[in-house]
Amino acid sequence: MYPEIIRDPRFGELTQADIEYFKSILPESSILQDDQDLSGYNIDSMRKYNGQSRLVLKPRSTEEVSKIMKHCGERKLAVVPQGGNTGLVGGSVPVFDEIVISLSNLNKIRSFDEVSGIIVADAGCILEATDMFLAEHGYIFPLDLGAKGSCHIGGNVATNAGGLRLLRYGSLHGSVLGVEAVMADGTIVNGLGKLRKDNTGYDIKQLLIGSEGTLGVITGVSVLCPKRSKVMNVAFFGLDSYEKVQKAFVKAKSDLGEILSAFEFMDRESQDQVAQFSELRRPLDEQHNFYVLVETSGSNRSHDEEKLQEYLEGLMEAEIIDDGVLAQDETQMKNIWTWREGIPESLARTGGVYKYDVSIPLEDLYLMVEDCRAKLVEKGYEIGTEESNIVNVVGYGHLGDGNLHLNVAVKSYSKDVEHALEPWVYEWIQKRQGSISAEHGLGFAKRPYLKYSKDQSMINLMKQVKNVYDPDGIMNPYKYI
Amino acid sequence: MYPEIIRDPRFGELTQADIEYFKSILPESSILQDDQDLSGYNIDSMRKYNGQSRLVLKPRSTEEVSKIMKHCGERKLAVVPQGGNTGLVGGSVPVFDEIVISLSNLNKIRSFDEVSGIIVADAGCILEATDMFLAEHGYIFPLDLGAKGSCHIGGNVATNAGGLRLLRYGSLHGSVLGVEAVMADGTIVNGLGKLRKDNTGYDIKQLLIGSEGTLGVITGVSVLCPKRSKVMNVAFFGLDSYEKVQKAFVKAKSDLGEILSAFEFMDRESQDQVAQFSELRRPLDEQHNFYVLVETSGSNRSHDEEKLQEYLEGLMEAEIIDDGVLAQDETQMKNIWTWREGIPESLARTGGVYKYDVSIPLEDLYLMVEDCRAKLVEKGYEIGTEESNIVNVVGYGHLGDGNLHLNVAVKSYSKDVEHALEPWVYEWIQKRQGSISAEHGLGFAKRPYLKYSKDQSMINLMKQVKNVYDPDGIMNPYKYI
Repeated sequence: MYPEIIRDPRFGELTQADIEYFKSILPESSILQDDQDLSGYNIDSMRKYNGQSRLVLKPRSTEEVSKIMKHCGERKLAVVPQGGNTGLVGGSVPVFDEIVISLSNLNKIRSFDEVSGIIVADAGCILEATDMFLAEHGYIFPLDLGAKGSCHIGGNVATNAGGLRLLRYGSLHGSVLGVEAVMADGTIVNGLGKLRKDNTGYDIKQLLIGSEGTLGVITGVSVLCPKRSKVMNVAFFGLDSYEKVQKAFVKAKSDLGEILSAFEFMDRESQDQVAQFSELRRPLDEQHNFYVLVETSGSNRSHDEEKLQEYLEGLMEAEIIDDGVLAQDETQMKNIWTWREGIPESLARTGGVYKYDVSIPLEDLYLMVEDCRAKLVEKGYEIGTEESNIVNVVGYGHLGDGNLHLNVAVKSYSKDVEHALEPWVYEWIQKRQGSISAEHGLGFAKRPYLKYSKDQSMINLMKQVKNVYDPDGIMNPYKYI
Repeated sequence: MYPEIIRDPRFGELTQADIEYFKSILPESSILQDDQDLSGYNIDSMRKYNGQSRLVLKPRSTEEVSKIMKHCGERKLAVVPQGGNTGLVGGSVPVFDEIVISLSNLNKIRSFDEVSGIIVADAGCILEATDMFLAEHGYIFPLDLGAKGSCHIGGNVATNAGGLRLLRYGSLHGSVLGVEAVMADGTIVNGLGKLRKDNTGYDIKQLLIGSEGTLGVITGVSVLCPKRSKVMNVAFFGLDSYEKVQKAFVKAKSDLGEILSAFEFMDRESQDQVAQFSELRRPLDEQHNFYVLVETSGSNRSHDEEKLQEYLEGLMEAEIIDDGVLAQDETQMKNIWTWREGIPESLARTGGVYKYDVSIPLEDLYLMVEDCRAKLVEKGYEIGTEESNIVNVVGYGHLGDGNLHLNVAVKSYSKDVEHALEPWVYEWIQKRQGSISAEHGLGFAKRPYLKYSKDQSMINLMKQVKNVYDPDGIMNPYKYI
């Protein structure tokens, strides 16, 4: 499948003796070897990456993970830790014959403290189920994303997932208080602290957060969860320039302050795409160059509504926005979010999409989209005409986090278009000290482009960590670094 | 000074040739060798630790730091990076003849983005000056602490300082977006990202945050700053049990939610101490077993006051609090904070204080103080009688962060009292999986006790990082790990 990559000759080959050993430490139901059983673990959720693993292990405890890793470490058998397998960069599936260690049988909530809001749970707990458990206690998981129904919280931590609540609750580097992991040699690292403050030594768990299974297998996490907000509100409005979008953001931070929970922006092209390729209805009748979705979450309905009302009136008076709507009920709120979330799907309907999930300093964020259109035109491409392969070039994303989704929708994938875009996009980002992967991670797909976001001195420090913690390179090989 | 520690024989001795080299790369004013000039850099702010350095270097740029470290690395000359030298664990002063690298000449704000609130600044910027700069732009530094007038933001990051705003703005692991550092061999690591989201590789800067100068010299930081709140309010109330303090905290998180910015608790003994050993007036006339200071910060005065009023009424109705006062103006607010901040000073007036800055899961937090009193009585000590050496045993702290300050005030330090307290206090904390240093760090003072907070597997991972990044151990030796 990947002619440019060869299997690492240092790695052992799986033998019957290995299988026998795994059978001695795991029940039969935890060992999958049938082709049919294996396929779901070999292929990623986008069906873009396909590995050739012959063995999936589903341990039920941290100790079982430890026994597996000890054996794999001694035998130099490469492994891929796998959570809900919902990643978007091919990080959670094997490349060759790596053993898949699925965390799905490690799915218990270990403890929850109603006073502090600190939850300790197995890595394999489903995000949505964990959030529902917390909802019963008036708390919320500080992370939300589209794949919540199947992704694991251990996988979320391993990939430092971003998602929809980051603007309000910050990144997992702040809210994860502890990590329990099994290292390449089988050592169990007990770092499941339940403390908000702990200045005793290097914060090693931070290395595991976002390491995508390349340093160890995360088996448990401890997370500080905020109180669930009692009230939510959503507004949607149109603006005529990106400068005004930025002004509306600064004003939102000032007027809405502590209740601001999302600030999403979309360009005209992305909205036209949804209008054309979905059944959804535009939230606003008139059309504008840019649109913004603002969400608030707070503890007092009348206070929140008053703040939001004043904010919108202030925007109108200052002529920052042209037109807007404030959701009047739960259904309208949901409709507006569905409209926003309809963008990726409506893009996918055209044939193929070149997706760039990038971070760029705010002032230059939208310039990336404009320059991309200009670049394609300069290279002789037409955009959106009947004959052209390129259907649309759109920009939208989590403006509050500086996270742009640049999407180039095509009728069919072509090496020509790809070469017009790459590495140009990455070079453009590098010049502005942006990130080539804001939230999706590196995995298999982005590994070759790391140098566009990190300089050599930083990459060297990373490699030193990798080499010292996983000297034989058996943890999720061919990826990340 | 420290008979139990010997100078590491691997380290080079400073020669005239070294001085000549430093003179070739630095101006005269950046090189201090006179006893008088050196003393302020050799002694810590508590005057408890005293080093014997013969040389202080004050580089003016990252490149100069790099040249210094390259030479020290080659010559195996040990160094101590020093910020404002305000630490409380002896981490910022030399033990033997380590060269002090003072960051005080690296004190420029490099950039500030009004839209995103991201500041990039030299490590040697004073915290208060940085915060004042941000105030002019309507922003706030996400950290505040007593030493703000002299501590450096680079030192804050190097020690992962906690302070008064942590409950609201989270730890520096969440708000620091980037770190520029010079490693032991002189390599400049350019990690000054200005991105809220960046999932490209191991988050190496997290290792530097809280590493206390043992991995590299932090020369610049990039920090995400929140908008400055327009309104602040302070309430102070009395309660009769620690259970009720916890209930008041849960209710504060629910009722005050997004505007809660501090939740400090104090026991009766700590208040009696302030009343007796300071000129300050009690905020409440009647006396109670426990007291709580609640602060809110928000964007709308009437909303905040309404929320706080409702919260206090709810507490009264549920009979959680006995008595309370809501500050009516800036002066009253300041007086209440001064009362709270008067505790350490009033304790110091008795003679000496055994200070434990610890994190403990909330439910057990106050038990530490009660058990400590019982332990001392069991050992035959009287507390607070005319003849007894032990004047008071008090508990107070940042309850919202799970951070207790257990203080044992004595007429004079005694090895007997020390041995009654240690390692008993650390063992007690270990049993409850607490932290022996919530915010002060390890430095020289707490290094021997690390094992009470971290298990061997974690300590091993730390040592691997230290050995790979600083193989000769020249970065801030004899400390931390």
